[in-house]
Amino acid sequence: MDGLVLYIANKNYSSWSFRPWIALKAASIPFEEVLIPFNDDASNPKFHEISPTGKVPVLHHGSLRVWESLAIIEYAADLYPDAGLWPFDPADKAMARSISMEMLSGFRALRSACPMNIRREKKAIDLPDGVAQDVARITTIWKTMRQRSGGPFLFGAFSAADAMYAPIVNRLDVYDFSVDEDTAAYMAAMKNHPAWQEWETAARAESWIVPADEA
Amino acid sequence: MDGLVLYIANKNYSSWSFRPWIALKAASIPFEEVLIPFNDDASNPKFHEISPTGKVPVLHHGSLRVWESLAIIEYAADLYPDAGLWPFDPADKAMARSISMEMLSGFRALRSACPMNIRREKKAIDLPDGVAQDVARITTIWKTMRQRSGGPFLFGAFSAADAMYAPIVNRLDVYDFSVDEDTAAYMAAMKNHPAWQEWETAARAESWIVPADEA
Ligand SMILES: N[C@@H](CCC(=O)N[C@@H](CS)C(=O)NCC(=O)O)C(=O)O
Ligand SMILES: N[C@@H](CCC(=O)N[C@@H](CS)C(=O)NCC(=O)O)C(=O)O
Repeated sequence: MDGLVLYIANKNYSSWSFRPWIALKAASIPFEEVLIPFNDDASNPKFHEISPTGKVPVLHHGSLRVWESLAIIEYAADLYPDAGLWPFDPADKAMARSISMEMLSGFRALRSACPMNIRREKKAIDLPDGVAQDVARITTIWKTMRQRSGGPFLFGAFSAADAMYAPIVNRLDVYDFSVDEDTAAYMAAMKNHPAWQEWETAARAESWIVPADEA
Repeated sequence: MDGLVLYIANKNYSSWSFRPWIALKAASIPFEEVLIPFNDDASNPKFHEISPTGKVPVLHHGSLRVWESLAIIEYAADLYPDAGLWPFDPADKAMARSISMEMLSGFRALRSACPMNIRREKKAIDLPDGVAQDVARITTIWKTMRQRSGGPFLFGAFSAADAMYAPIVNRLDVYDFSVDEDTAAYMAAMKNHPAWQEWETAARAESWIVPADEA
């Protein structure tokens, strides 16, 4: 069988691309990456040629197409059961999935007000209703999980759950949310991870500007 | 270890409760069910006592809490790997998860315009922008998967993917969408499933009216 090919968009902006990319990278799962940049409106008709939803990320494995960020991670976890994408303890794994799906289905206020933007200069913006509530729930999740595990990541070692929240770490950082020490410690651990650093370096080297994602 | 306890809301209205309930029921996985009815606004402060998100469904297993409909299904699939919650073929399983997560994260226009309502009398309503596009994508998914599998369900036998789309079947039915023969055949297969019938009978026997969900 052919290798895994992950299609993504701009590293600076594409939050959903970042999630499976950093998950697979941190777990040392080999894959080839193909980047198709966004147009000005943060979409691209070319996505329809590679993905059934017209969205990225999408994983190609031979003739198989796997779409949705978290479904890609689950597929890789089934292919590489020992790579530690999910925590090994069943209760940890269950909670890691609960918070990953909470991310996938929620936090719309924060996501739409504050697009991921890796190289953005740190600066606060006026926040619409609902954002503070999203951030309160997210930081509660981070705190609760890191207290259970003893940190530094949500379940001790870096897992798929951290990958799902990686773009949120960027948002709290570059939109200059005031966070407590514990949240700051988690954000620092994330930003120091070698896989994060690799993504960030590549994002900073990109020259594309996507107006739709500059808040 | 104690048994599984699934907390749900009204069977007539709670679309997210319906998903893990019908998945576990169809797979003959034993669980106890506890129903906490909605208030008029389709929420209930009591949900906060049982669920970290203040939402249902939530699964209790001893001291473990598993929330998010699809995370509950994944947990049950790990506990009962032979129950067939997911298709056994790896490619089928990957696509079943892709479409399940597409459901979890998307189709907001349809979901908010047309709340699930099992006993609603079939009647069309004026549909806001975006609903037709959601329905087009959903029926394409159903058609594509049933063509691959040969039907009657999305991957041949009833699976978690069908469970995730069960509330959509109700919506297309009771808001009287005009559907083609193929879509009608899928909807009929779903509505004839014994687990669907059991849920529907219980929903019809409920006397609560939730104004927020009567569109
Ligand atoms: N729920 C999807 C979201 C995918 C998504 O919205 N991707 C964006 C890029 S970050 C996209 O492709 N947008 C193009 C469009 O919507 O046309 C996932 O988890 O993969
Ligand atoms: N993404 C969640 C959605 C859960 C959800 O929104 N549940 C509704 C009932 S169907 C609820 O509890 N609403 C109460 C509230 O939002 O306050 C899941 O898949 O379980």
